[in-house]
Amino acid sequence: MAVGLQPPAQLLPVDGIRLSVVAAGIRYQGRSDLALIEMAPDSNVAAVFTRNAFRAAPIIVAQRHLARAAPRYLLINAGNANSGTGKLGLEDAIVCCQKLAERAGCGRDEVLPFSTGVIGQRLPTDKLIAAFPAALEQLVPGAWQLAATAIMTTDTVAKGASRTLILDGKPVVITGIAKGAGMIRPDMATMLAFIATDAAIPRALLRDLLHEAVEASFDRITVDGDTSTNDACVLIATGKSDVVIEAGSAEFRAPLQSALTEVMVELAQAIVRDAEGATKFITVDVCGAASAEEARRTAFAIAHSPLVKIAFFASDPNWGRILAAVGRAGIEALAIERVEIFLDQVCVVRQGGVAGDYTEAKGRRVMIKTDIAIGVDLHRGAHAFHVWTSDLSYDYVRINAEYRS
Amino acid sequence: MAVGLQPPAQLLPVDGIRLSVVAAGIRYQGRSDLALIEMAPDSNVAAVFTRNAFRAAPIIVAQRHLARAAPRYLLINAGNANSGTGKLGLEDAIVCCQKLAERAGCGRDEVLPFSTGVIGQRLPTDKLIAAFPAALEQLVPGAWQLAATAIMTTDTVAKGASRTLILDGKPVVITGIAKGAGMIRPDMATMLAFIATDAAIPRALLRDLLHEAVEASFDRITVDGDTSTNDACVLIATGKSDVVIEAGSAEFRAPLQSALTEVMVELAQAIVRDAEGATKFITVDVCGAASAEEARRTAFAIAHSPLVKIAFFASDPNWGRILAAVGRAGIEALAIERVEIFLDQVCVVRQGGVAGDYTEAKGRRVMIKTDIAIGVDLHRGAHAFHVWTSDLSYDYVRINAEYRS
Repeated sequence: MAVGLQPPAQLLPVDGIRLSVVAAGIRYQGRSDLALIEMAPDSNVAAVFTRNAFRAAPIIVAQRHLARAAPRYLLINAGNANSGTGKLGLEDAIVCCQKLAERAGCGRDEVLPFSTGVIGQRLPTDKLIAAFPAALEQLVPGAWQLAATAIMTTDTVAKGASRTLILDGKPVVITGIAKGAGMIRPDMATMLAFIATDAAIPRALLRDLLHEAVEASFDRITVDGDTSTNDACVLIATGKSDVVIEAGSAEFRAPLQSALTEVMVELAQAIVRDAEGATKFITVDVCGAASAEEARRTAFAIAHSPLVKIAFFASDPNWGRILAAVGRAGIEALAIERVEIFLDQVCVVRQGGVAGDYTEAKGRRVMIKTDIAIGVDLHRGAHAFHVWTSDLSYDYVRINAEYRS
Repeated sequence: MAVGLQPPAQLLPVDGIRLSVVAAGIRYQGRSDLALIEMAPDSNVAAVFTRNAFRAAPIIVAQRHLARAAPRYLLINAGNANSGTGKLGLEDAIVCCQKLAERAGCGRDEVLPFSTGVIGQRLPTDKLIAAFPAALEQLVPGAWQLAATAIMTTDTVAKGASRTLILDGKPVVITGIAKGAGMIRPDMATMLAFIATDAAIPRALLRDLLHEAVEASFDRITVDGDTSTNDACVLIATGKSDVVIEAGSAEFRAPLQSALTEVMVELAQAIVRDAEGATKFITVDVCGAASAEEARRTAFAIAHSPLVKIAFFASDPNWGRILAAVGRAGIEALAIERVEIFLDQVCVVRQGGVAGDYTEAKGRRVMIKTDIAIGVDLHRGAHAFHVWTSDLSYDYVRINAEYRS
């Protein structure tokens, strides 16, 4: 079902990172559902987490551990989110970190736990703990693709991206993986995403790089407006390459930020392309707004409209629904006679009504595509914002009616 | 498909109001699609309209006419919303008022036009105008039910409600009709609703009564979060009964407000019960909030969550989705360990996790019902808000994918 999305052709190993996967039988049978990521000592780590008030237990524990120590392991399971599980859920997350740390010979705080899957059920800690020996034994640098597959839930395609860039004449690798297909409306974070580079980057700068890249990637996607309780995005710099990025080194920062953003946009778009039941990949591009917030609000009003999403599922150029969504976005004193709405390059609305040169045939030629841009020019300022989203299909309803059954 | 909703058994005539319907062939064949409501001279009229910036042409014209003159006729058509039609749409709405006024012998400003149906197509004014002679000839007091049927679009059941109350020993009648099933998230207004009483009520008081009743009824329903471009709610006081309500007459105002609110709540709930594809009628009841806005925001976050709505469609007590929706409602410093979530009387979430005495069987017993209440107690204040909504089913997607085809 994924819209124009293939599994990543090649995910480059990152010096200083080893990964492994195990079929722990947490919920699924006959597939891996636990991934372990090991970071070389002295790696720096930055992370952003969900802003949902009901943060899941592993998110709370990961934030706490990250504040206390430099992490050595990311422990990720699919099939159970350990969310809405109260104090027992916190204890479950902590005992997993403790048991892994004992076996790996590190401190409990050096393990960050991540969980994704069903909300509200106890984590089967015995199954996870039983899988730790194999997970630690099988760590290898080349298992990014396997890890991307192990963390999938309703995802249909594994998601990963790699870039190599040359800084100071030396190669730097960035590789990332992500998962997510539903309950997607990241709020300064995403579903699960893990990105690593072998460059040496101080923590403060790493955080800045991450926040800027998240703003341009995961903060701009929505499937259903539902912010998860388990979102997390982790960026690791192992420092194993010879490239050292300093806070002041502007000539390195720009290309690194650019490559990192490219990787994260690719991952974010992959999540939307693999959105539950998706048949279309839609870019909502709002310009001419009086403020960034106004552009953002308009873009999300369109992207969250069930009626707009269903019109795209039906390949129906029902532009009235886009117009209605713009109209309810809460823009003060909007001069509707100035608003222009486009489907790809086709102008559909002008001067508050259908554009004079628009024909239904032109609209249909755009709507039968799988990748479509909705353009909105408010003609009242210089601010713009874009967001990526999917359509709303029978299968979205089916998947979410059947999930848990 | 409507959830526990029957057509109104009896809609009482209101002295001073005559109605008629005609099959004008605007879009549908073999059914009435034009309704005319005539008000006795000296009737007072109050109205609220959509806050969507893209107000439809008839809304703009109705607001303008209402500001200029005391209305004598409400002209309502289904099948075409005359929205997103720019200047031509305005001219179309005006010419309909003009032609009806000429034939009826009143001023153009004394006609208020209302349209509902497809957005973005020119109104076939010739078909409407051709229907005016029959519409004027057939005006009768007892055609409320027929009018409720004529204004339906994707509605499956005609919606109306009546009350009689005794004020000062004399009977007062309130009768109203409404339509709407999708693109429902009224913003200080509703889909189309027309309510009349034979009491004599000055205009300023009529406006207050209307606003208060709208706040308790149409402002508390949502089907899909999509605010229509054509929403309007009109309240008429013909003054034909012997009951005169003055602004100061407190002992009359309370029972009248109460009866009016009852009628409008019945109409608003009927819209949700007949929501496109609905199989459940859901009351979201938030209490213990620190402010009214906080309670409101939490209730709508739950009511707009596609994942919550699909869980109800599946009769699945997937309370984690409710918890996630509460968590993303943007409540500052929410103490999640205090939050309680209920399905009807069954406590599901307590202290940030599943309630100790909750069992899946208890949850399922609630979820198989068609009328279900979601209760949320934030335990941080004394404010409450409730909202009525429907589930999200395959049929909602089907109806909105096929509509227009």
